[in-house]
Amino acid sequence: MTQTDHLFLAVCDYPEHVPEDRWRSYARQQRELGLTFVRMAEFAWSRMEPRPGEYDWAWLDRAVEAYHAEGMRVVLCTPTATPPAWLIRAHPEILAHDTQGRVREFGSRRHYDFASPVYREHSRRITWAIAERYGQHPAVVGWQTDNEFGCHNTGRSYGGASAAAFPDWLAARYGTLDALNAAWGNVFWSMEYSGWAQIRPPNLTVTAPNPSHVLDYARFASAQIRDFQAQQVAVLRELSPGRFVTHNFMIFESGFDHYEVARGLDFATWDNYPTGMLEFFAPPGTAEEVKLRYARSGHPDLVSFNHDLYRCLVKAQDRLGREGRSSPNGFWVMEQQCGQVNWAPHNPLPADGAVQLWTAQAWAHGADVVSYFRWRAATMAQEVMHSGLLRHDETPDRGHAEVQRLDATQFPTGNVSARVALLHDYESLWILDEQTNGGPTYWAQTLAYYTALRSLGLDVDVLHPDDDLAQYVLVVAPALTLIPERRLQKLQADAEERLFVFGPRTGFRTESGCAYKNGQFGHHKDFFGVRCLNFESLRPGLTVRVGDHQAAEWTEGYELLGNATALTTYGSGPLRGQVAAVRNGNAVTIGAHAPGLIGEILQTLAAEVDLTPVLLPEGVRSSRRAGRTLIENWNPEEVQVSADAIHAITSSGSSEALTLAGTSWHLL
Amino acid sequence: MTQTDHLFLAVCDYPEHVPEDRWRSYARQQRELGLTFVRMAEFAWSRMEPRPGEYDWAWLDRAVEAYHAEGMRVVLCTPTATPPAWLIRAHPEILAHDTQGRVREFGSRRHYDFASPVYREHSRRITWAIAERYGQHPAVVGWQTDNEFGCHNTGRSYGGASAAAFPDWLAARYGTLDALNAAWGNVFWSMEYSGWAQIRPPNLTVTAPNPSHVLDYARFASAQIRDFQAQQVAVLRELSPGRFVTHNFMIFESGFDHYEVARGLDFATWDNYPTGMLEFFAPPGTAEEVKLRYARSGHPDLVSFNHDLYRCLVKAQDRLGREGRSSPNGFWVMEQQCGQVNWAPHNPLPADGAVQLWTAQAWAHGADVVSYFRWRAATMAQEVMHSGLLRHDETPDRGHAEVQRLDATQFPTGNVSARVALLHDYESLWILDEQTNGGPTYWAQTLAYYTALRSLGLDVDVLHPDDDLAQYVLVVAPALTLIPERRLQKLQADAEERLFVFGPRTGFRTESGCAYKNGQFGHHKDFFGVRCLNFESLRPGLTVRVGDHQAAEWTEGYELLGNATALTTYGSGPLRGQVAAVRNGNAVTIGAHAPGLIGEILQTLAAEVDLTPVLLPEGVRSSRRAGRTLIENWNPEEVQVSADAIHAITSSGSSEALTLAGTSWHLL
Amino acid sequence: MTQTDHLFLAVCDYPEHVPEDRWRSYARQQRELGLTFVRMAEFAWSRMEPRPGEYDWAWLDRAVEAYHAEGMRVVLCTPTATPPAWLIRAHPEILAHDTQGRVREFGSRRHYDFASPVYREHSRRITWAIAERYGQHPAVVGWQTDNEFGCHNTGRSYGGASAAAFPDWLAARYGTLDALNAAWGNVFWSMEYSGWAQIRPPNLTVTAPNPSHVLDYARFASAQIRDFQAQQVAVLRELSPGRFVTHNFMIFESGFDHYEVARGLDFATWDNYPTGMLEFFAPPGTAEEVKLRYARSGHPDLVSFNHDLYRCLVKAQDRLGREGRSSPNGFWVMEQQCGQVNWAPHNPLPADGAVQLWTAQAWAHGADVVSYFRWRAATMAQEVMHSGLLRHDETPDRGHAEVQRLDATQFPTGNVSARVALLHDYESLWILDEQTNGGPTYWAQTLAYYTALRSLGLDVDVLHPDDDLAQYVLVVAPALTLIPERRLQKLQADAEERLFVFGPRTGFRTESGCAYKNGQFGHHKDFFGVRCLNFESLRPGLTVRVGDHQAAEWTEGYELLGNATALTTYGSGPLRGQVAAVRNGNAVTIGAHAPGLIGEILQTLAAEVDLTPVLLPEGVRSSRRAGRTLIENWNPEEVQVSADAIHAITSSGSSEALTLAGTSWHLL
Repeated sequence: MTQTDHLFLAVCDYPEHVPEDRWRSYARQQRELGLTFVRMAEFAWSRMEPRPGEYDWAWLDRAVEAYHAEGMRVVLCTPTATPPAWLIRAHPEILAHDTQGRVREFGSRRHYDFASPVYREHSRRITWAIAERYGQHPAVVGWQTDNEFGCHNTGRSYGGASAAAFPDWLAARYGTLDALNAAWGNVFWSMEYSGWAQIRPPNLTVTAPNPSHVLDYARFASAQIRDFQAQQVAVLRELSPGRFVTHNFMIFESGFDHYEVARGLDFATWDNYPTGMLEFFAPPGTAEEVKLRYARSGHPDLVSFNHDLYRCLVKAQDRLGREGRSSPNGFWVMEQQCGQVNWAPHNPLPADGAVQLWTAQAWAHGADVVSYFRWRAATMAQEVMHSGLLRHDETPDRGHAEVQRLDATQFPTGNVSARVALLHDYESLWILDEQTNGGPTYWAQTLAYYTALRSLGLDVDVLHPDDDLAQYVLVVAPALTLIPERRLQKLQADAEERLFVFGPRTGFRTESGCAYKNGQFGHHKDFFGVRCLNFESLRPGLTVRVGDHQAAEWTEGYELLGNATALTTYGSGPLRGQVAAVRNGNAVTIGAHAPGLIGEILQTLAAEVDLTPVLLPEGVRSSRRAGRTLIENWNPEEVQVSADAIHAITSSGSSEALTLAGTSWHLL
Repeated sequence: MTQTDHLFLAVCDYPEHVPEDRWRSYARQQRELGLTFVRMAEFAWSRMEPRPGEYDWAWLDRAVEAYHAEGMRVVLCTPTATPPAWLIRAHPEILAHDTQGRVREFGSRRHYDFASPVYREHSRRITWAIAERYGQHPAVVGWQTDNEFGCHNTGRSYGGASAAAFPDWLAARYGTLDALNAAWGNVFWSMEYSGWAQIRPPNLTVTAPNPSHVLDYARFASAQIRDFQAQQVAVLRELSPGRFVTHNFMIFESGFDHYEVARGLDFATWDNYPTGMLEFFAPPGTAEEVKLRYARSGHPDLVSFNHDLYRCLVKAQDRLGREGRSSPNGFWVMEQQCGQVNWAPHNPLPADGAVQLWTAQAWAHGADVVSYFRWRAATMAQEVMHSGLLRHDETPDRGHAEVQRLDATQFPTGNVSARVALLHDYESLWILDEQTNGGPTYWAQTLAYYTALRSLGLDVDVLHPDDDLAQYVLVVAPALTLIPERRLQKLQADAEERLFVFGPRTGFRTESGCAYKNGQFGHHKDFFGVRCLNFESLRPGLTVRVGDHQAAEWTEGYELLGNATALTTYGSGPLRGQVAAVRNGNAVTIGAHAPGLIGEILQTLAAEVDLTPVLLPEGVRSSRRAGRTLIENWNPEEVQVSADAIHAITSSGSSEALTLAGTSWHLL
Repeated sequence: MTQTDHLFLAVCDYPEHVPEDRWRSYARQQRELGLTFVRMAEFAWSRMEPRPGEYDWAWLDRAVEAYHAEGMRVVLCTPTATPPAWLIRAHPEILAHDTQGRVREFGSRRHYDFASPVYREHSRRITWAIAERYGQHPAVVGWQTDNEFGCHNTGRSYGGASAAAFPDWLAARYGTLDALNAAWGNVFWSMEYSGWAQIRPPNLTVTAPNPSHVLDYARFASAQIRDFQAQQVAVLRELSPGRFVTHNFMIFESGFDHYEVARGLDFATWDNYPTGMLEFFAPPGTAEEVKLRYARSGHPDLVSFNHDLYRCLVKAQDRLGREGRSSPNGFWVMEQQCGQVNWAPHNPLPADGAVQLWTAQAWAHGADVVSYFRWRAATMAQEVMHSGLLRHDETPDRGHAEVQRLDATQFPTGNVSARVALLHDYESLWILDEQTNGGPTYWAQTLAYYTALRSLGLDVDVLHPDDDLAQYVLVVAPALTLIPERRLQKLQADAEERLFVFGPRTGFRTESGCAYKNGQFGHHKDFFGVRCLNFESLRPGLTVRVGDHQAAEWTEGYELLGNATALTTYGSGPLRGQVAAVRNGNAVTIGAHAPGLIGEILQTLAAEVDLTPVLLPEGVRSSRRAGRTLIENWNPEEVQVSADAIHAITSSGSSEALTLAGTSWHLL
């Protein structure tokens, strides 16, 4: 039922927010606009169960029927992102604690601790109730669990139920306190524990907590989310056979391991807000001029990185044991901005054409469905200033007009057949970001490589390092700080038949977050062909020459081992003369954070494996799917793309130069 | 007794801070300097009642007598801004809670919750005691309640007594939970309440609380202040007949509805610290170069806006039912900076002439009395680095010399007869600032219009939108976000005989803080002649062309209705071609935050209603009172004012150009 | 045993962090590198006493023996900076509270309240146990108490044990509440106390607390640290005769009175991290270009100020009654950075030569021993990214190579014979920084004078104002805000035979933190020859002319008294024409914060007393010890030092110009 041969469009709608007389007409208008799916009810618990145990399904029955009658297919949600007031006041122990130790209060959303046994029981109960009611309704094609896990820093709670559950989780992981103390290096500052109950969350410490403590707390919290959702998924599988189950993940969310949490889902979805993303979620260090240039469109690579990440979560499911079915190519955009947002520091209107550009880009990166948020702008509460396809007054807004003009049938579904993989791992993210040491954050470093690849016109799959890499000729691992022994063996095997590129801080940490006793790259030095001699972070303005480029923020210097060869050396600073980038067989490691150098090396390597890299103009991007090539111009101004570039990115015969208006796309 | 025919001068003095042998000589020196009134005792509770129930009036008796003997008239205060330690330690439940949930401790001032029933009883008791003792003393001419309500963010407490009182206040306002849930739109995120006791202050929520919740909490907190003061006023009226009762309000204080709180007062006073105001209270976005240019004088419009606001509070009393008598023209400056302050990020000395300039300006804006803070600089505690008319060593400081050279008899009292009104409303302020959405704050938007008017040489009354507007030909409402139905009817009637100018975000919210279901301007579209199509906020550097001007920070685009005509349209950006400013009969609405455009439109409209707008030089301002015109130069440098400008602002016959030294004034 | 005739080198090592098989070989390598001392065990409590009362000395016995066998001399530590988990969980009342009232949790270090009677008992107990075990071990030459008192803002706790002890401390100091209320000026805002138990720490107040309250809380907290350590020292003296006792103080630590806390120590040591210091501890206002220029070396004056301060702590002991013995010249660097640190915002590698430069500088400023931190880089926990002499993989790192090339025997011990003293006082620091009023902080103002002196090639002792000043011809007191009567008398006597220079805000506060009732300089005006008329702080960009210079941040204007003469007057601003710098006999007071003016006056005065000031090139510094002169180049680039400059700083006969490579030194 959800298998499609071309891009389908959808919408998020909230029947509980409007009078009942609107439901049928909204559904009809949605069909007329070409929308197929409607997501609803993710925040409606207080209407489903106004008082403890008193369910009221009548309104939702009628709402589902209204959309069904107009031919819309319904995606329902478990409403657990917003437990109602009566439940919270009866069980305040459901509430989470922030890093400052304060209770995070009722009055907005996501006010619960994933580890709360009380809340887990209520989560199971309400999931059972809604799934029992609608699980086999003919209009219901699938389910979304909860809403945006981790949003508003809710991935971790630092007290209450989580604090209570942490010691047992550790006991299960380590068996003995000796093992835990050794793994964390607790001898360091006399931090050794002599009883499990002595261990608490790693917050409010006098100075920084032990990073190993932080790393395991991140793993623990991630496991709570996984288990919390798994309970819901089990209920939904039982009571709603034949329907898909998904979750709408967040932009660059780092609070849990998405590979683990996505287990058991049919496919992943995510919520795409390009302009808010650039203002609010861009990695630290993103230049103000970049934020200004792309203020009305968002940055292409920030958006598409998330597409590539969430599209490929499904690939990880192959490894982890997928339970459900999937879209043929794997993901939806569950919420797609279609006008201004309201939650960023600044909330400009999208440029003319941006809604189409985002939709086309989503398709080109593998989306089967793009669902606009939301049908009608909310007239109440926290999101009064957020746009929808309809204005407050129910007239079609700018985004509506762009959707109306868009022929979604021109976008065939089918595979995104990237030959380049970028490896991503949440454990590396956690340990790197806990101790950036003044260098770039995990996302900043990762994006530097991703942007270099996209600037060369290459398609990229974002994968977990344990995923199957058979289809790739070039694998880029920008920030794999944590490489356990078993993973290294896999990478070595993978590297026999394809090129690998690694970034700084690769292989710096053991599985428990320590440094290797034999230094960076640990037992893996033969693979990388180097040992690291030194590393450093650099204040803004302090740069180091590396070949013809300038490294900033981070450098590390290497000594060659075996037959490895230097690609470039440092030309200034304390590391002058040390190796800045090295090649050892198929493994290339770049120790300098120097975007120019990264681009140069990737371009050379891509050409070596018969990809056709080409340096695209600033703000121009391309993506290929199902034999078609989308060319995108994210600049506010018109841009020319040369015939050579078109030729390279389409891999076709002769081509002609192309002129694209500002904020527009072209399908070849 | 307080009726004066020219400006009178006064001082704040603290007999409890100095040895008794100083009292008489200080009073004598004050008289010799030309001062008439002395305010005292607002922080002296620990001396009035050193231990529970043990009053000590002897010292204050002698102090009042000492000033009386030298002919000074005394303004006494209720000392409730500083409950003593014994009271707080006996009743810690008096203390307020901050937004982080922490108790705000004893050890400075304003450490109480207005809603505390325990504190209300002690407030009534100490007010009774001091009023009984001095209420009919011949030297006592009036009373100040408490001190600077709301200072240090004390307008609202987020716990304790306020939290306990909030549900009952809501129950009284809404009657039923269904009504409250509907008014707040609590269905939005399942925030519906099923019991009054479930409702708490809107702090520590996981993400932003419901703005309707915030709005009602602001109303609730304001009502607590009103009731707290009313209790004191009732006692003072009973025990001190024939004396005025006032309160010294704060610079740009936003924590309560001054119109409500001023009810029952004879007139308003406020505390004027121009240099500290510019450093500390200037609206966000005030340019650093403006802060640098006016570092030693403060900004003329920030100061005079407060004059115009507090002068006109008394007009609102006509509407609300004034209890007391008033100065003929309505307000005092209860505290006037006369040297450096100590509480801003930087505390420069005022320029030569600034103390006279501030005093003259206060008169020109309607002050009957200017009271300098303070007689002698404090030699102890938090304000050791604050200046007074005397230095620590009791020698006359720079401000003293300026006061000595000033002939206050040249400033006749009489009316400020503005023909332009600027409408201001605290409910609009609260809801707008809760969701600026990245645009200008309420004060920033309001000041943009106020500055435009003052730059044109126009006098302005700052009024509540419900006030009588009969005397005005031009009414400017920069940010009336919240316009209930009954208010619109009044505005429509008012607009039959005068021009109105509205700013962006006008009429965007309902009385409970929702958006109108029929969009911006709600049911009022016929009056404005437009519907709003879109709005947006812009990051610094992102501007939009509008006519010959650049809009920044905020734009909204309109569609014309009926016979409305466009004054200008957007020339770039997504709103290109949409209406940026519109005229519908006498109602002009400006949707673009573009100071140049605002000035141009106001100048045109002012000329249309036979005002004589003229573009004054940067930093030059004029004000008219009682037939005289004050011309002020706030620049550090000398400035020329053209004959044409003089002619326009004096509305007199031929005039000559005028040269004003830096930081000086001229009376015509 | 610790008396040396030339600079000795040492290292910090952590046998508990590495396998036992490393101990002997590490010790051997240390000897081979030329190291003499090894510090150990400051964080090893959880290994000394794994469970309550169960001591395990076996490992430490073997470790001490291993180092002893290789000829290393051992400095042992009391492990009280890191009480183990079992102790904290059994007695959570040991934990301190931060200024926000939160408990500062277990999980890093320094998690205790110095005032805790429970912790004092455990501190005494563990000190007794380790001293009993190793006090007379032949390898043990001395002791370090605890580790870095005050680090991570742990000097003061704002709750718990400290809050409980504060009232008694006050009662002992003031005797009566009347005396306390008078001393603090509590009448100011009705803050008078009527019971000792009403008094709490000065945090969480509604607005700023009474600065007198803050000042006494700082004194109280300092006394707690003094008493806490004294208890340990008494045990060590009893059980470890003939060994020295010291403490490793922190960079610019301000949380306690080092003169008081150093009482009873043999000599002071401190922990020197030049690059981290510049990034993290540089006074507010340090220019970004300075931080960039010296990013890889640290700033010479920040480093050497700490040398000069901690060297001279021992002089204060002469006054206070020294208990122990001392190095001949007084101090060690207990921890010396020898590669990148990990705790600053940015952590670059030191420049080539920096480790030698720092070592040579330490010697030239009087260090007898320089101890590198640490032997091998930690492979676990919070400091994984910090360097050591060995890398993680146990290979020699860059710093090791520099140490290996350094011949420490070329640096003879002997006196630093400065003829210039800079006066420093923690009480002045506390009261000034509590109310900077927008002007420079205490350290910023102090460093401005120190840098001026160092730029002139002068050696400086940093002394307490009560110290013996017999050997000095020029005494500079940059920020003696608090000058009690008895101290003034001493200064007057001192000034009979030497020149004094005072900075702004001198003599502004009484002993209890009030202002003098007769104004700035209080009863000391005759000595200074001026009264202060006005002071002000200036926002960035607002400057005032003073002679040929520009004053920024702070000015104060004076009126001459008696025979005093003006050195310069203000040329602009409200203080135009007032005296900016004055000379009264041997006392010079500079009221303008104008580095150019400060340098000019100091140069003139230094010449007057037959010092030989010379303006050294930017980044070049000199120091003299034991008849030798060290010339240092802290610039990244080569620099020329003229023959005249060499002549002046060596006070020798004819000299030749000298060329120094970047980051290098030369010994004459």
